[in-house]
Amino acid sequence: MIIGVIGLGTVGFGTVDILTKEKERLEKTIGEEVVVKYGCALEDVNLPDGIIYTQDYHEVINDEDVDVVVELIGGTTIAKKIILDALNKKKHVVTANKALIAHDAKELFTAARENGVNLYYEASVGGGIPVVVPAKEDLVANNINKIEGILNGTTNFILTLMERDNLDFEEALKIAQNLGYVEANAALDLDGYDAAHKIYILTMNAFGTFFDFDKIKCTGIRNVTKKDMDYAKKLGYRIKLIAMSKKLENGLGIDVSPTLVPMSEIVGNVMDAYNVVEITCDYLENVLFYGKGAGRYVTASAVVADIIKTAKKDVWTHDYDYTENVYPITSSKYYVRSEQPLNLNYDEYYSFGEDHIYITDEVELKDLEDALKDTPATYFKVRS
Amino acid sequence: MIIGVIGLGTVGFGTVDILTKEKERLEKTIGEEVVVKYGCALEDVNLPDGIIYTQDYHEVINDEDVDVVVELIGGTTIAKKIILDALNKKKHVVTANKALIAHDAKELFTAARENGVNLYYEASVGGGIPVVVPAKEDLVANNINKIEGILNGTTNFILTLMERDNLDFEEALKIAQNLGYVEANAALDLDGYDAAHKIYILTMNAFGTFFDFDKIKCTGIRNVTKKDMDYAKKLGYRIKLIAMSKKLENGLGIDVSPTLVPMSEIVGNVMDAYNVVEITCDYLENVLFYGKGAGRYVTASAVVADIIKTAKKDVWTHDYDYTENVYPITSSKYYVRSEQPLNLNYDEYYSFGEDHIYITDEVELKDLEDALKDTPATYFKVRS
Repeated sequence: MIIGVIGLGTVGFGTVDILTKEKERLEKTIGEEVVVKYGCALEDVNLPDGIIYTQDYHEVINDEDVDVVVELIGGTTIAKKIILDALNKKKHVVTANKALIAHDAKELFTAARENGVNLYYEASVGGGIPVVVPAKEDLVANNINKIEGILNGTTNFILTLMERDNLDFEEALKIAQNLGYVEANAALDLDGYDAAHKIYILTMNAFGTFFDFDKIKCTGIRNVTKKDMDYAKKLGYRIKLIAMSKKLENGLGIDVSPTLVPMSEIVGNVMDAYNVVEITCDYLENVLFYGKGAGRYVTASAVVADIIKTAKKDVWTHDYDYTENVYPITSSKYYVRSEQPLNLNYDEYYSFGEDHIYITDEVELKDLEDALKDTPATYFKVRS
Repeated sequence: MIIGVIGLGTVGFGTVDILTKEKERLEKTIGEEVVVKYGCALEDVNLPDGIIYTQDYHEVINDEDVDVVVELIGGTTIAKKIILDALNKKKHVVTANKALIAHDAKELFTAARENGVNLYYEASVGGGIPVVVPAKEDLVANNINKIEGILNGTTNFILTLMERDNLDFEEALKIAQNLGYVEANAALDLDGYDAAHKIYILTMNAFGTFFDFDKIKCTGIRNVTKKDMDYAKKLGYRIKLIAMSKKLENGLGIDVSPTLVPMSEIVGNVMDAYNVVEITCDYLENVLFYGKGAGRYVTASAVVADIIKTAKKDVWTHDYDYTENVYPITSSKYYVRSEQPLNLNYDEYYSFGEDHIYITDEVELKDLEDALKDTPATYFKVRS
């Protein structure tokens, strides 16, 4: 196969590097040549010998020899044009672009199908953890009921720092920023949109449906305080940014929100920049995938696997319906903290100094908010 | 695709059941018919309407309409003949038969290759957890350094019972046997051979090599006492039956042995009949798969996924070398318990009543055994 890589930032460079170093072994695995013909980027990059450097992506896409176009520039404008152009030229496309897929999945997969080629996007969720394809293909027997995940490594790193080094949110954020862990548009990480892009992709495949990305209710970690984190820990929980989707009676439930997760569960022990995805389904019951969610070679590992997979004739369709029935998941147990005693149905109650802490019964958010309407209180979901 | 299922025990029946109930959805996923034409078994089974029941597997294999033969009778004699016959008739084969693959992988994959068909075996390891194919295909970019797993649900269930219900090995074994969790040949579970079959399969793919199954050193759980389990717990560990393979300087290290695993690690928190596989590699660093390792529908979930995958033209080879350089993994930290103080280099030392407990430095087993040659002592590996 002849490959053109468009976008030579962290992941793009890692991809070219792996394809160069592992060329011989990869070729043996699939019994055909694996050749990177082009590296395309606006900035000047030092490419390995034999790879053509170009600043013009048309040169890559118009080359009839190229079988696979790898889009790693990100964003939803030029990247979209590149991918559609490549598909329309009957090239397979590999991308890590979660935002684009979350917004334009239907259009992209339709273009792939009409051109008889495939769009691969394993690297868009969970860095190098194999989860997109396994959840789709290896779980194909199953009707999936629920997906829960820690899908954004940056916020998990910040929450870990807050707990371990006894920092408040702003202090931990500064450290993460200094390490280059936070996206230029910090809202993507901190307000949960990056996690939402990823849960969109998993949900689309698991439930076989497209839907409007903007229907995902996102609550990020800006309001997670050290105080609540400490109380949670005393009660046996950690606060994690959980992206969740599940079947509801009236449709599809999906949201991203800070959630207390029991420390007795694996998900409650996922620290630093690690990601986890837990899937609950009928035949297989539950299955969990865990690993590093980001990093040059971590993500490039998934990109390379997708590139190699284009050698197979793929038959899996994305022939999904479109649904309007998408809602936040509002029925939950909640952690509630208030300086006043509250009139709530609860599983657990604690009094710490001036603070009253409740773990409620499973309740509708609306009913909880009604109960709290006259009382200042802080609350988060609790995983049950 | 037209399917013949040979073997209608627990997993075989579950497979037919899923293929029947999920037919419409599966057909939509891959855009072709999914038809079970035959169910073959010696015992009489109540099959869904429209499936031909036969006691003669030749009827299945000789039918030119059949594309996929599913072998679920187990064992290494008739099952081998069925698989080879089916491959030679140019049928794809799906199996959960770990013992057979661990013993005859080279012969089976060669037959598949020569006939231009594929042999699928995801269900042979980890029940329904997607791990065989992900470790091979999704991790293809990586050079794998180490695989560690809890691969036998029965022994993990027994160890969990011993810890949670304060039972000794024999008591816990009896409960597991009464629940039907223990293989008819109990040595497969208790002496580690089942786990060894599974680590063989993962290792073969990860390291791209065949080797003699009998070179895997197996130590089971019969010598794990409640006493050592309790001490381990005081020190922050649980004893787990760990199947491991790793690159050694002089070849491939592989063995199955009871091992102290820190409770701070995910692997140390895998309880009951759950399985886990953790893979350490260069680009992706580490990745972990977790889920139920057995059960009618759990394993059938993986069989069905493999059946559906035969619709793809597969290009992945098992064109592996054969190596003689296979050894037990003898360099480790060890837990040592003795009634006499010992002269060992240790990380940790504890004295509990009459017992002296050491967690040694990393040491060669031979050197440890030399040090203990005049002193009665019990020892297990410690995961580090």
